[in-house]
Amino acid sequence: MREPQQERSRTTRRRLVEAAVECLAARGWHGTTVAMVAEQAGVSRGAAQHHFPTREDLVVAAVAQVGEEQLAELRKQVELLPGGTSRSEAVAEMLLNLYTGPMFRAALQLWVAASTDSKLLAVLAPLEARVGREAHRVALELLGADESRPGVRETVQATLDLARGLGLANLLTDDTRRRRRIVRQWARMLEPALAGTLPEPMGTRFL
Amino acid sequence: MREPQQERSRTTRRRLVEAAVECLAARGWHGTTVAMVAEQAGVSRGAAQHHFPTREDLVVAAVAQVGEEQLAELRKQVELLPGGTSRSEAVAEMLLNLYTGPMFRAALQLWVAASTDSKLLAVLAPLEARVGREAHRVALELLGADESRPGVRETVQATLDLARGLGLANLLTDDTRRRRRIVRQWARMLEPALAGTLPEPMGTRFL
Repeated sequence: MREPQQERSRTTRRRLVEAAVECLAARGWHGTTVAMVAEQAGVSRGAAQHHFPTREDLVVAAVAQVGEEQLAELRKQVELLPGGTSRSEAVAEMLLNLYTGPMFRAALQLWVAASTDSKLLAVLAPLEARVGREAHRVALELLGADESRPGVRETVQATLDLARGLGLANLLTDDTRRRRRIVRQWARMLEPALAGTLPEPMGTRFL
Repeated sequence: MREPQQERSRTTRRRLVEAAVECLAARGWHGTTVAMVAEQAGVSRGAAQHHFPTREDLVVAAVAQVGEEQLAELRKQVELLPGGTSRSEAVAEMLLNLYTGPMFRAALQLWVAASTDSKLLAVLAPLEARVGREAHRVALELLGADESRPGVRETVQATLDLARGLGLANLLTDDTRRRRRIVRQWARMLEPALAGTLPEPMGTRFL
């Protein structure tokens, strides 16, 4: 009897987590309650509150789990990439598209709410740090970057910060076409930065 | 009698606009009302509603006016910059710090609220487009970039998208130290990208 119950419990949790991301992305933090997410997930309110006593618990679990799945998915896609020449553009595209979906919209609603809500901030800050570190690790791996070279760590960080900025630019309007052109240029800028073949900064050469 | 009254009216408007930015940054869109902003500005509720009948009017005017002032301020600062060698890093620093203050926090609260509020979106979208174009023009000018060169336009856009991503990274924690290292690397990546001396993409060379 235990197995099916555990199974059922996992299914319930998964439904709640997915509904929470959708609800956050569509209605924002102020429009998201456990009861509303339960209804959207087709789960009883009691069962929802058994899994997630507060809405903070629910949304943080949702963003953590969906975020991890998204990064795992990215790792899988990369195995399908061609090796060699066209790889850097394909990887740049994947990374710069990372924050253009409902997952980022949901997380953004939380970040912004947390900036004016210390209770939410307390639960969100450690998660944000963990997801950020994990995204950095994945980006490093996909780019095949060697962080012992000067400037490489900052280049990988800039790639993810740029991706988040592009996620923001995609929030109110569909920014796909503009982003595609930026991806192409970014791939070109990445190559010398990661290979360590950028010219010395002008300041160092002439002063 | 007219002159002083116009003067007084301008002062009232300015106070309301500044208080609205502070209020948005500190409390978010859901915590911002015309009455609350009026109180914070030391202006009567009636006078506030005379200038700004709805809170949409108020916050949009606030973000527009403070945004324009910020860009004008940036143009002035740039005149004080040294010419030549260390200029590119100084300009990169100014641009990448552009979205780390209360103005960006206020605008971010609005963008995120507008993503789930079509009434707010309708008033905000044209403003966002206008402020975005203006920021691009200022960035182009500061970087001394020539957009007729291939890739330069995208490089300038990426600089501003990166700046917005860095603004986001600065929302929940003080990101100053990490950002400083990214600025240094970004200045190095900008030089060949703007000078048009990046190597051809690998894909073109070898395929």
